[in-house]
Amino acid sequence: LDDLDPDVEIIDVGKAPGSHAMPQEQINEVLVQRASEGDVVVRLKGGDPFVLGRGGEEALACVDAGVPVTVVPGVTSAVAVPAAAGIPVTHRGVAASFTMVSAHSAAEALEQARGAAAGSTLVLLMGVGRLREVAEGLIAHGWPAATPVGIVERGWTPEQRSTFGTLADIAQVAAVRGVGSPAVVVVGDVVEVGRRIGGSDA
Amino acid sequence: LDDLDPDVEIIDVGKAPGSHAMPQEQINEVLVQRASEGDVVVRLKGGDPFVLGRGGEEALACVDAGVPVTVVPGVTSAVAVPAAAGIPVTHRGVAASFTMVSAHSAAEALEQARGAAAGSTLVLLMGVGRLREVAEGLIAHGWPAATPVGIVERGWTPEQRSTFGTLADIAQVAAVRGVGSPAVVVVGDVVEVGRRIGGSDA
Repeated sequence: LDDLDPDVEIIDVGKAPGSHAMPQEQINEVLVQRASEGDVVVRLKGGDPFVLGRGGEEALACVDAGVPVTVVPGVTSAVAVPAAAGIPVTHRGVAASFTMVSAHSAAEALEQARGAAAGSTLVLLMGVGRLREVAEGLIAHGWPAATPVGIVERGWTPEQRSTFGTLADIAQVAAVRGVGSPAVVVVGDVVEVGRRIGGSDA
Repeated sequence: LDDLDPDVEIIDVGKAPGSHAMPQEQINEVLVQRASEGDVVVRLKGGDPFVLGRGGEEALACVDAGVPVTVVPGVTSAVAVPAAAGIPVTHRGVAASFTMVSAHSAAEALEQARGAAAGSTLVLLMGVGRLREVAEGLIAHGWPAATPVGIVERGWTPEQRSTFGTLADIAQVAAVRGVGSPAVVVVGDVVEVGRRIGGSDA
């Protein structure tokens, strides 16, 4: 942002976790209002705007107000954070599909995750506090207890840390290591491929 | 590539669909051999290297040969091509999860897709020739026949074209319009959100 022309006005909407400086409705209003006044507005987001980024809501607010929108895709943490630990979400002969789940509750996560086919990769973007319930639930729904699980905390930062286990023991391992959010959890045999490749914190 | 220093050697491995100039094993060999000779090797790929990019195989070949690898994530077509048509793979209140499926057969695609929870988004990266079988299979597995389907051909190119329908009629609609590969198929209610937002070919 330091490289921007001094004429560019920066509006910080502060969407860091837990500190919503500006409510979503107000963000939508600012986008529409400024654009309606003739400004070119860039809504800068981390990750991809259409993967849990509420980009769809903001785009709809603009379109409904007659403001044309161009969406520029980004690098989603659902794929990039596993890669930080060397984990490919797909790998020939191991997994040809992956499911990204973000849930407000463990029950919701299980509802979305349990149908994932054997040999598929599950990427959970959710609080690690629900890890035990989700892991136990997946086993109860037929996933092998020995299915590898990897957790990547603070991916691509100097504080990145990877934690590995299985559906049977990952909750215990994570508790012992004090694993916390933000973190991405990967479930599936690709985790073992990732351990062979190695990540930036290996 | 035109901006590269003239000292940089470019090796075209030609992975355009249907014209594999260099077999995968040979690509792995070139990576390892050049790196072992002391060269810094950049393996440039479209999309994300770990989403169907065989990046994991190439990384493993290097690691197994003692060559250190850094993987740089990219913008995956699984998310970016739907976005080209305005379709968000997740949208608050519509879909909090998505499943990306790439399959060598319709049966395999169905095996991976049919478990996806109601309210989840399905992104199919596969030949549109299998569309009828997959759509019929999803209905047979309990997906509502009225589930919206969007197909985005040649996303982000001047030839981009979007085709819309439902699981019940998309195969017929696609046949009439002569839809062909490369294309990304999106199944789920987010397709309707995308139609409201509108894409670059709308």
